[in-house]
Amino acid sequence: MAVKKLRPIRWNGGIVYLLEQRDLPFHEKWVKCDTVEKVAKAIEEMTVRGAPAIGITAAYGVALGAVRSKNKNASVFEKEVKKAISRLRRTRPTAVNLFWALDRMEECLKAVSVLPIAEQKRALEKEAIDIHLEDEALCNRLGEHGGRLLEKAKNVLTHCNTGALATGGDGTALAAITHAARKNKKLHVWVDETRPYLQGARLTAYEVAHAGIDFHLITDNMAASLMKQKKVDAIIVGADRIVANGDTANKIGTYALAVMAKAHGIPFYVSAPTTTLDLIKKNGDEIEIEQRNPKEVTHPQGIAIAKESYPVYNPAFDVTPGKLITAIILETGVCRSPYQKSLRQALATAKKESM
Amino acid sequence: MAVKKLRPIRWNGGIVYLLEQRDLPFHEKWVKCDTVEKVAKAIEEMTVRGAPAIGITAAYGVALGAVRSKNKNASVFEKEVKKAISRLRRTRPTAVNLFWALDRMEECLKAVSVLPIAEQKRALEKEAIDIHLEDEALCNRLGEHGGRLLEKAKNVLTHCNTGALATGGDGTALAAITHAARKNKKLHVWVDETRPYLQGARLTAYEVAHAGIDFHLITDNMAASLMKQKKVDAIIVGADRIVANGDTANKIGTYALAVMAKAHGIPFYVSAPTTTLDLIKKNGDEIEIEQRNPKEVTHPQGIAIAKESYPVYNPAFDVTPGKLITAIILETGVCRSPYQKSLRQALATAKKESM
Repeated sequence: MAVKKLRPIRWNGGIVYLLEQRDLPFHEKWVKCDTVEKVAKAIEEMTVRGAPAIGITAAYGVALGAVRSKNKNASVFEKEVKKAISRLRRTRPTAVNLFWALDRMEECLKAVSVLPIAEQKRALEKEAIDIHLEDEALCNRLGEHGGRLLEKAKNVLTHCNTGALATGGDGTALAAITHAARKNKKLHVWVDETRPYLQGARLTAYEVAHAGIDFHLITDNMAASLMKQKKVDAIIVGADRIVANGDTANKIGTYALAVMAKAHGIPFYVSAPTTTLDLIKKNGDEIEIEQRNPKEVTHPQGIAIAKESYPVYNPAFDVTPGKLITAIILETGVCRSPYQKSLRQALATAKKESM
Repeated sequence: MAVKKLRPIRWNGGIVYLLEQRDLPFHEKWVKCDTVEKVAKAIEEMTVRGAPAIGITAAYGVALGAVRSKNKNASVFEKEVKKAISRLRRTRPTAVNLFWALDRMEECLKAVSVLPIAEQKRALEKEAIDIHLEDEALCNRLGEHGGRLLEKAKNVLTHCNTGALATGGDGTALAAITHAARKNKKLHVWVDETRPYLQGARLTAYEVAHAGIDFHLITDNMAASLMKQKKVDAIIVGADRIVANGDTANKIGTYALAVMAKAHGIPFYVSAPTTTLDLIKKNGDEIEIEQRNPKEVTHPQGIAIAKESYPVYNPAFDVTPGKLITAIILETGVCRSPYQKSLRQALATAKKESM
């Protein structure tokens, strides 16, 4: 099956083009960013979202600032690029990948500062492209490992958004689905809407439709009934944080799916890069859960479905115990229980590879 | 605790007043119906919804047609009332309670047809009021039986809308909550929004807030996480149909809650009148599940969250196996497993009572 790739971040001749994610799935509008400020605004205003995608966009923002600079004086040029980096740093204060990418661009700048400006520009452009390509390669590895687990599945269920819109490649959990779909043209996906923020309905359905994979959109509370009817062969989700025993924090609703998968004997997979591993934490009790704005619940897409004055409980994440997870797919391979051992080994492998 | 009663259907001096449910929870607007046509339109256009509430409103519609008639000729009067009945019959073609209530009004008309018109009017008015009061008493019995099961609970979770807005009294499952809240002022309710049609967010939250009971609104996929944190002591839901082995069809999402309740050792209760029993069906496999309009999923409250062209799966109900149900609360009392026996006995008791 020819699965169409989606690439929402594009670098072309010193300009960053971003697919306006706030207009999805209704309009495919490209935002042209030809200044650092436009890139910063696009990150702040969520034209682009998803941790890896934000990091890649910020790196391109630095490259853009360098490449388009008209300064001929080396120290003024350096100041200008540093100013671009600090502007981009102020866009999303809690985005780990953002700082990681900007630190890397800053290190690159430092490393090439003795070279002529033209070469510095080339180096910074190459560094940003590398960050993007590395993430694409990471997604491919996640997709290959995960895809093998889904090759025989007819119906796969996924939650939240883990595809091309959030990363530099095919995504994490969704990469497994797109990779499996290339070999298994009968693959069908159940995309749950993922309340409260509707990432499934707004973004994953768009990604799956764009890829040309057969799917149905469902509300979150329909999954159990499908499992009972034997219409779900596997579930695959992403992760925000995975601790030593495999306990996994991910978008609210993940734990419910894992409990139901267990009750129905359905494999439950998590796919994430090794950067998601936080092995200093022993178990999920140590993960703090962020409470989010009640209006996400009472006003989906800004439209009131309940009174704003109603008390609301709105946790961003829940924690799925490692013992409910059939396998954790990392770019280094597939980890299984006991996770204390397999995740430590995977992290050691990843560190060795990156040296 | 003083739990405030909600009565959305009122009969006063030959006029039916209906709380406009389509404007809830944002506006409390009363619709004044002083003609049969206005009552019919209110049912058709869903100013009033919920099977028992529709039946009661239709009965008042017949009473209204009779009481406000200016005809002095007995046979013309009879024709006029019959015309009202047939107009009301055409409002909601699949509403069982509607036909039941109208049949009862027609029988009443027949029984009193030899009396003077003034007495016929009084009899028809009394019959409609009786239908309303009987439903209120039924709700009270459900509330008393169910309330006892919830008296010691701190946190009760409920799904969909089962309260005063759907019935002539305190409701079915929600009646258990309001009854328990009168004795247990610390009772707190988790109201799930109940996608796709949002009956929980729009109606149940309004009912619980109106009653003055402490609550939080959640999305459906948050329930499991609350159970894991031991923040749910009991779950209670209504039913659309209960078959011989206790298998229960109810709003989509009910089965998921039952599976999670089982996994967390939490009691799972169903509350419904004996008219919901369909004991000719042996098990849930015999229950046909209605598929509903995909736009309920893609366009909650009419606002697009996904493309209208996306394929959608939207079953109205799911079936919860009797073996996952701790107890079924009927107006005759609390039934427990084996349901084959307890439900048959309950139905026999109910039939005896109604003779």
